[in-house]
Amino acid sequence: MSENQQASANIGVVGLAVMGSNLARNLASREGNTVAVFNRSRYRTDELVSAHPEAQFVPAFSYEEFAASLSTPRTAIIMVQAGKGTDAVIDELLAVFEPGDIIVDGGNANFHDTIEREARIRETGIHFVGTGISGGEEGALNGPSIMPGGSVRSYETLGPILESIAARAEDGTACVTHVGTDGAGHFVKMVHNGIEYADMQLIAEAYALIRRGTGKTPAEIAEVFSVWNQGELSSYLIEITAEVLRQVDAETELPLVDVILDQAGAKGTGAWTVQNALDLGVPVTGIAEAVFARSLSSAAGQRSAAKGLAGPSAVAVDDADAFIEDVRQALFASKIVAYSQGFDEIVAGAAKYGWDVKKGEIARIWRAGCIIRAQFLDTIAKAYAAEPELPALLLAPYFREHLESAQDAWRRVVIQAAGQGIPAPAFSSSLAYYDGLRSDRLPAALVQGQRDFFGAHTYKRVDKPGTFHTLWSGDRTEVAQEPSTH
Amino acid sequence: MSENQQASANIGVVGLAVMGSNLARNLASREGNTVAVFNRSRYRTDELVSAHPEAQFVPAFSYEEFAASLSTPRTAIIMVQAGKGTDAVIDELLAVFEPGDIIVDGGNANFHDTIEREARIRETGIHFVGTGISGGEEGALNGPSIMPGGSVRSYETLGPILESIAARAEDGTACVTHVGTDGAGHFVKMVHNGIEYADMQLIAEAYALIRRGTGKTPAEIAEVFSVWNQGELSSYLIEITAEVLRQVDAETELPLVDVILDQAGAKGTGAWTVQNALDLGVPVTGIAEAVFARSLSSAAGQRSAAKGLAGPSAVAVDDADAFIEDVRQALFASKIVAYSQGFDEIVAGAAKYGWDVKKGEIARIWRAGCIIRAQFLDTIAKAYAAEPELPALLLAPYFREHLESAQDAWRRVVIQAAGQGIPAPAFSSSLAYYDGLRSDRLPAALVQGQRDFFGAHTYKRVDKPGTFHTLWSGDRTEVAQEPSTH
Repeated sequence: MSENQQASANIGVVGLAVMGSNLARNLASREGNTVAVFNRSRYRTDELVSAHPEAQFVPAFSYEEFAASLSTPRTAIIMVQAGKGTDAVIDELLAVFEPGDIIVDGGNANFHDTIEREARIRETGIHFVGTGISGGEEGALNGPSIMPGGSVRSYETLGPILESIAARAEDGTACVTHVGTDGAGHFVKMVHNGIEYADMQLIAEAYALIRRGTGKTPAEIAEVFSVWNQGELSSYLIEITAEVLRQVDAETELPLVDVILDQAGAKGTGAWTVQNALDLGVPVTGIAEAVFARSLSSAAGQRSAAKGLAGPSAVAVDDADAFIEDVRQALFASKIVAYSQGFDEIVAGAAKYGWDVKKGEIARIWRAGCIIRAQFLDTIAKAYAAEPELPALLLAPYFREHLESAQDAWRRVVIQAAGQGIPAPAFSSSLAYYDGLRSDRLPAALVQGQRDFFGAHTYKRVDKPGTFHTLWSGDRTEVAQEPSTH
Repeated sequence: MSENQQASANIGVVGLAVMGSNLARNLASREGNTVAVFNRSRYRTDELVSAHPEAQFVPAFSYEEFAASLSTPRTAIIMVQAGKGTDAVIDELLAVFEPGDIIVDGGNANFHDTIEREARIRETGIHFVGTGISGGEEGALNGPSIMPGGSVRSYETLGPILESIAARAEDGTACVTHVGTDGAGHFVKMVHNGIEYADMQLIAEAYALIRRGTGKTPAEIAEVFSVWNQGELSSYLIEITAEVLRQVDAETELPLVDVILDQAGAKGTGAWTVQNALDLGVPVTGIAEAVFARSLSSAAGQRSAAKGLAGPSAVAVDDADAFIEDVRQALFASKIVAYSQGFDEIVAGAAKYGWDVKKGEIARIWRAGCIIRAQFLDTIAKAYAAEPELPALLLAPYFREHLESAQDAWRRVVIQAAGQGIPAPAFSSSLAYYDGLRSDRLPAALVQGQRDFFGAHTYKRVDKPGTFHTLWSGDRTEVAQEPSTH
């Protein structure tokens, strides 16, 4: 098959729903690419090919044809719903591909699955690459942020192709890099989505605080976000927030945000980010509060039953402009914390799964194409370039200075929220994290004392090495000992 | 084998480390029980039998002997480290047990494993019961709180045996009930442990707030906790907190809590509780903040690098007694929230896994024997007895009244924490949850707008049924449509 004379495409796409079609069109529009396309139901292939003659697609109607149309090493990107569908397509490709060929999963797979698939497929001599692709349908078409894992070898072939279609940052570089081996790409995409949850929740809290604290209308708050988008908060999410808040519902003539049911949905990657952070022992409080805030919003029965639960009497803030500036600073400070926690999870994941992830590279490829794209990511990339082994992102000089200068405003906002009864779980959790991190002593010492009391879990001392237990039920002397194993 | 004349024991214990030995001694001390004991290494069996002649143990030195020593239906409790060891013992018992016999896993198994094991073993006709046992070594010996799952049939035999050894509540009832089928017992034990994490973290925050807010010494704060233990906060954890705070280190003559390294350890069940809550879509913010607070405390490198990060200048509170009363009320309010969230997780788990869990029964069996035992659990049991289908525990009249009357104090404490730079993540997160639950409108509506903007995720409206999408990249009209499937 490898000498098939029909072989004319350097890249193939399997699965031609919106994301796959758009990615195929993006590929075809770039110099040097010829794109083979295949879909289980033939009509989608026909539709795509006839709707886009300019793309000069090479359609295939069986896996054999698809393989025959690809030059070696064959490289195919699977764009189907994550899960069993992915395995079915992989099995079909394995039957027609040869050692050295490359199978790419561009869906939102769980990285644990990607690790397993890569190990299984590696034995056949075929490369398997799980890649995160962020930016939605529009990004797939015009330039997404791409996070491929898989072998270094596979990236030699795949890299130039992905670089041709990736989003370009302002400095012209492509938003793609070899993230690390096996599941690294899908892991980093997962954390990206978790950070996106936190970022959106923080923006939502800022909006609610201004709305309830100052009585401004959504249209007026849209202006606030537009102004913020000129400064250090400049980002795609701030930009679209202004757009959403500005939107008026044609039917009711009310602000659209007042007509939308306030129950936020979720698609899993936010929860995965928190679940894996728990496995890794990394506190990602901002992301967790964001995911839980969505769950709470969707608990319609409980919310309805809780109506009338007493709160404080709301009093508008004295100086609306000063309060809005406080909220801006609190938002930026909380955002720094959320991103710092997300990068901590990437570091811990890389250590656990053996990936050589370059944090600065991750920040670099998130600067354009993806949902969290922002000027901010450029600052993060520079912080890691200056100090690759930063113990925590928030300790980089730029972020540290901003946190320290924002902290008074941040505290005033959390105080306002608590006093006025406006829920701001991600703002207050991020501040508590900041205060926890900088505490000389934490009451975790008391927790250790409790655990030793009821479970003989032992404790360590500040003044000497070793492990100790107090004979709480005995004479309360302290004994040095090995950690309890039961 | 079932007619073996040696059969003299009605219950057996496999695994004779501290927990297993203590449970065996507890069983042997109760009227009507004769206890067979077996351990992989013979010396432990010999040691136990010779150290406790009063127990009249029936020692066995092979699985065959063990099975022969048990009257039918044979009932054996496995007390080994959770994981592969459990499976190995189960396989040995399956080889010598017969249909109708009962294998009980008393370890801290993951309930997902218990569900799988029960399904596999059920096919042999042998009953498999996963049971939570709380109370540590002391509880195992003198009366634990016991949470068995498994079949209703198995409980007919097992129930009376477990009732004989369980802790007794003040009204004399045994702290054990058939929780539900297959993994229900281990699930409920997991949530118990998650709640325990939250309870301990809240107490730790209360301690830190009083210490840093008023400058009182640990010994003085021990007195505060002793007084609290006389009122509605009365509980084992409050009681031992006073004991730990009162303890003076013999070597340094400092309060022990100042000598203990402030890095709290964890054993997994807290993280599991949060991970499963995420799967179930239940916000358990208090438990999550507690687990993350332990992770943060253990991030020694980051904490050390963060030293000197700016905070506010600490100012002692004006009226220490008034502040302490505020903290007491805030602690009680936050505790109500944490327990309410935990019971929400039990309800959601029961619904997902098909268990008929009686919430009032769970509260009833947590009143004694376990780490979170408290007067409070009696109040919870009564709340569910009065209204079994409470939409949320915190909406029961007693708790609702307490929350509402505590809320001003609760807010003052969160405000104090934020202003003084004292981390109180579980206090502030619980307050934010309360304020979120009672909010007429949440900014989740904005989040839905953002999601529709960047991902065409659609939204629902408050004023009519259906699913809608605004053509954000088009003319911005709204179209009714089916939810996006990609």
